[in-house]
Amino acid sequence: MESKTANFTHIDANTNYPTMVDVSDKQITKRTAVAQSIVVLGDEIMALLSGNDIHTKKGPVFQTAIIAGTMAAKKTADLIPLCHPLALENIKVDICINETREVVIMCTAVITSKTGVEMEALTGASIAALTIYDMCKAFSHDIVIKETKLIQKTGGKSDYQTQ
Amino acid sequence: MESKTANFTHIDANTNYPTMVDVSDKQITKRTAVAQSIVVLGDEIMALLSGNDIHTKKGPVFQTAIIAGTMAAKKTADLIPLCHPLALENIKVDICINETREVVIMCTAVITSKTGVEMEALTGASIAALTIYDMCKAFSHDIVIKETKLIQKTGGKSDYQTQ
Amino acid sequence: MESKTANFTHIDANTNYPTMVDVSDKQITKRTAVAQSIVVLGDEIMALLSGNDIHTKKGPVFQTAIIAGTMAAKKTADLIPLCHPLALENIKVDICINETREVVIMCTAVITSKTGVEMEALTGASIAALTIYDMCKAFSHDIVIKETKLIQKTGGKSDYQTQ
Amino acid sequence: MESKTANFTHIDANTNYPTMVDVSDKQITKRTAVAQSIVVLGDEIMALLSGNDIHTKKGPVFQTAIIAGTMAAKKTADLIPLCHPLALENIKVDICINETREVVIMCTAVITSKTGVEMEALTGASIAALTIYDMCKAFSHDIVIKETKLIQKTGGKSDYQTQ
Amino acid sequence: MESKTANFTHIDANTNYPTMVDVSDKQITKRTAVAQSIVVLGDEIMALLSGNDIHTKKGPVFQTAIIAGTMAAKKTADLIPLCHPLALENIKVDICINETREVVIMCTAVITSKTGVEMEALTGASIAALTIYDMCKAFSHDIVIKETKLIQKTGGKSDYQTQ
Amino acid sequence: MESKTANFTHIDANTNYPTMVDVSDKQITKRTAVAQSIVVLGDEIMALLSGNDIHTKKGPVFQTAIIAGTMAAKKTADLIPLCHPLALENIKVDICINETREVVIMCTAVITSKTGVEMEALTGASIAALTIYDMCKAFSHDIVIKETKLIQKTGGKSDYQTQ
Repeated sequence: MESKTANFTHIDANTNYPTMVDVSDKQITKRTAVAQSIVVLGDEIMALLSGNDIHTKKGPVFQTAIIAGTMAAKKTADLIPLCHPLALENIKVDICINETREVVIMCTAVITSKTGVEMEALTGASIAALTIYDMCKAFSHDIVIKETKLIQKTGGKSDYQTQ
Repeated sequence: MESKTANFTHIDANTNYPTMVDVSDKQITKRTAVAQSIVVLGDEIMALLSGNDIHTKKGPVFQTAIIAGTMAAKKTADLIPLCHPLALENIKVDICINETREVVIMCTAVITSKTGVEMEALTGASIAALTIYDMCKAFSHDIVIKETKLIQKTGGKSDYQTQ
Repeated sequence: MESKTANFTHIDANTNYPTMVDVSDKQITKRTAVAQSIVVLGDEIMALLSGNDIHTKKGPVFQTAIIAGTMAAKKTADLIPLCHPLALENIKVDICINETREVVIMCTAVITSKTGVEMEALTGASIAALTIYDMCKAFSHDIVIKETKLIQKTGGKSDYQTQ
Repeated sequence: MESKTANFTHIDANTNYPTMVDVSDKQITKRTAVAQSIVVLGDEIMALLSGNDIHTKKGPVFQTAIIAGTMAAKKTADLIPLCHPLALENIKVDICINETREVVIMCTAVITSKTGVEMEALTGASIAALTIYDMCKAFSHDIVIKETKLIQKTGGKSDYQTQ
Repeated sequence: MESKTANFTHIDANTNYPTMVDVSDKQITKRTAVAQSIVVLGDEIMALLSGNDIHTKKGPVFQTAIIAGTMAAKKTADLIPLCHPLALENIKVDICINETREVVIMCTAVITSKTGVEMEALTGASIAALTIYDMCKAFSHDIVIKETKLIQKTGGKSDYQTQ
Repeated sequence: MESKTANFTHIDANTNYPTMVDVSDKQITKRTAVAQSIVVLGDEIMALLSGNDIHTKKGPVFQTAIIAGTMAAKKTADLIPLCHPLALENIKVDICINETREVVIMCTAVITSKTGVEMEALTGASIAALTIYDMCKAFSHDIVIKETKLIQKTGGKSDYQTQ
C-alpha cells in the first residue's frame, strides 16, 4: 500500500508557491515505474493497422511511437516543471492491441537514483500515444487517448500496484 | 464533416517507412485547434484543491500546469517526430473543475500557417495533465488521465467539431 | 514615447492565471531590439583579459560568450514561458570594454513578424554575460552582472529608446 | 575565503581555445549555491503588483517566474557552453519585494556531485528575472535587472559568501 | 555554378568574431537542399541487415535512423551556432544500400523562407548516420561514416549540384 | 580486441522493434572515448584559414566549431534515440590541420558511469565538422566531411583502438 503525505510536496508551505522537492538527502535505490496509455482509434483505422499483409502499416506507426516515447521519457524534466533531471538507465516502450481492439502502450522506466521515475514512464506513454494519434489523424480526428495511468512502481518509499 | 484520405500520409508508399508530409505547396490560412484532457484525481485530492480557503492549493497547481502546457505546446515538433516546427501565434490553457469533480484542461492553439495545430493543442493539454498528476502524486498514484481528445479544429482542408 | 496598457497582457482577466498574448491578428512588420548587459569582473580579472599579448584571453572568452548569447536568443521561447516561438532573422552579440573597465554586451535581434524581439535581445545579452561569468569564476566569485536592460526597440506599436 | 587559480580553467593553455574542465577525478560532495537577481520595475508597476486586493497580480507573475527559473536552472548546461550537465537534486526560487520596493529573486541549487552549481543558481535567477520583465513590459520598458550575483556557495574546494 | 563571396559571411569584419548573417532583407523563395551521408558497416553487419528473412533487422535500424534524422534536421539551429531557426516545411530521409554494400542516407529539406536549408539537410543525414552507427556498434566499432556532403540545392542566390 | 555480440542489442528480440539497452545492473567505471571527423574544405578556403596574418579567420571558425561540438556532445541523448542521458564529466574538442591540408577534429568524452560515451564523442566531432562547413559554405559547397569514426575507447567491457 502507498504511504501518503498530508501536504502538497510541490507547494511551499509558507508562500503557497510551487517548488521542487529537495531529494539531496534521500537514499539511492534502484527504482522502476510502468505506465500505460490506451489509444482508441476506431474500427476503420484498426483495420488498416492490423491486416496480415507483409506491408502492414503497424510497423512504421508503432516503431515511430516507440522512438517518440523513448525520447520523450528522456525529456521529462524539460516538460514537467518540478521534475528532477535524471540519468535514466532504461526506457522500454511496448505496444500491443488488446482484445477490444484498442492500442495499449506500456512504458517502463528504470533508474538507480534518489527519486522515482513515474513521471518519466507516464510521459513516455503519453507521447507515444500522441504520436500514434498524429500518424493516424489523416483518417479521422475521432481518436481518443483514454486511461493514461501508472501501473506499477518499485524501489521508493512505498511500492505501488494498480488495482 | 471531415474529409478523409485513403492512405497513411506519414508513411512512404514505396518504402513503408515513416515520413513527414510536404506542406510547402499548401495555402497559408489561419488555423485553430482546441484539445481537452481530463484528470481524475479522486475525492481526497479534490477536497484539498477546491476549498474556499484563500490559501487553496488550486492556484499553484493549476498555474504550474498552465505554464507547463503552454511551454510543451511550443515543443510539439521536438516531441512528435513527424510534426512540422511552427511559430505558434497563441496558446491558451484553461483549467476548470466539472460537475463530476474532475479537472478539465482545455488547450487552444492558433497559427497562420500551411499546416494545422491539432498536435500542439493535444500536446499542451497532455503535459498540463501530467503536471497536475506530478503535483498531486504524493497523495496517491490512483490518478487517471482520461479522455485526451480533439474538441475543435478550424482553418484547414476541413473543420472538425467533436460530437 | 511608449504607449502603455492599463492591464497585464500576460494575465487572464477572468481567471487571474498566466496566459500568452494572441498575436494572430497583428501586423507583420520588421522589428528590432537591442539589449545590454554589463559585467563587472574586477581589476584583477580585467588585467588578464585586456593585455596586449597576442595570446590574450579576451578572444576565447568573448567568442564563447558571443556564441552562447546567439544560441540562447534562439532558445528564448523555451526559456520565457509566455514568449512566442520566432524564426529570428538576425542576432548580433557585440562585446566591448567601457571606460570604467566593465564588460559591455550588446545583443541585437531582428525579425519580420507579428511580435517584437525584446525578450530575445535581453536573453541573448543575459546568457552572454553568464558565460563570461562562468569562464572567469575560477579567479573570483565577486563578479556582478549589473544593468541588464533594453536600449532600443523599433517596428512595433511604439518605438523605444532608453533615456 | 576563496582560493584562486592563476589560469583560465576554461581556456586550453596550448591552443588558447575554450575548453571544459575535466572533473572526472574530483570528489563527490554535496554542493549548494545561492544566487540573486534584482528587478527594478518602477513605482507604477510595483503598485499593480503589491496591492491588498485578493486578485493581486503578484501571484501569477511571481509563480510564472518561479517556474521559469526552476526550469531554466535545469537547462544550464544547454545554455552555458562549458558547463557540465548535472542531475540537480533541488532548485528553489524565492521572490520577495525589498524595502526599496525592488523585486528580489533568490535561486538555490543543490547537488551531490563532482562539480558546483553556481551557474545553475545564477541561470535560474536570471531567467526568473527576465520572466518578470516579460510579464510587465506591456506597462513600460524602463525596467532594469540589476545586480545578478552569487550570494553563497558551499561544498566545493572553497566556500564563498558575498560580502 | 555557384557564386562566391570574398569574405567569411559568419565573421564580423571589424572584430574578427563569429556572427550570424542578417537575412531580414532577403527574398522569400522556396528552397530545397539534398545532402548525403554514407555509412560503411562492414560485411559482417551488412549480412545481418540485408537477409531476406521477414524478421530482417533492416526495418528497425533504418526506421530509427529516419526518425532520428528527421528530428535532428528540426533541431539544426540548436546545434549549429550561427544557423537561423526555420519552420521547415518538409524533411525526407531515405536510406538504401548501394552496389558496394554501403548504407546511403539522403536527407531532403524544404522551406519557403529567406535563407537556405543546406545545414538542415546535412544535419539530418549526419544524425541518421550516427543512429545507424549506434544501433550496430555492439557488433563492431570499425564503422566509418564517410562522405557527408551536399548533393543539390535550389532556390537561393545560386543553385548547386554536386559534380 | 573487441568482444562482439551475436544480436542487435537495440532491437527487441520478440517484437523486432527498437529498444534501449538496460544498463541498470552494469558496473560503474571511468570510461573515455575519442572520435575523429575530417573536413575537406579545398585549397581556396584553406588558404583563407591558414595565413600568418594576425587576423586569420582560423580563430573564430575553429572556436565556434569547438563550442558547437562541446554543446552537441551534451545533447547526444536528445539526438540519438536509444542513447542514455549521461552527466558527462569532460568533453574536449581539438582541431588541427593535417599534412594533406584537411581539418581534423578530435572529440574526447569522459564519464564515470554504467555505459560508454562513444556516441557522445562521435556526435561532438560530427557537429563541430558541420559547424566548420556552415562557416565556410559561402565560399563553396564542394566541402566534404569524410571519415567520421571512433579512434579509441576505454573503460567498458572491452577497449577499442582504431587500426
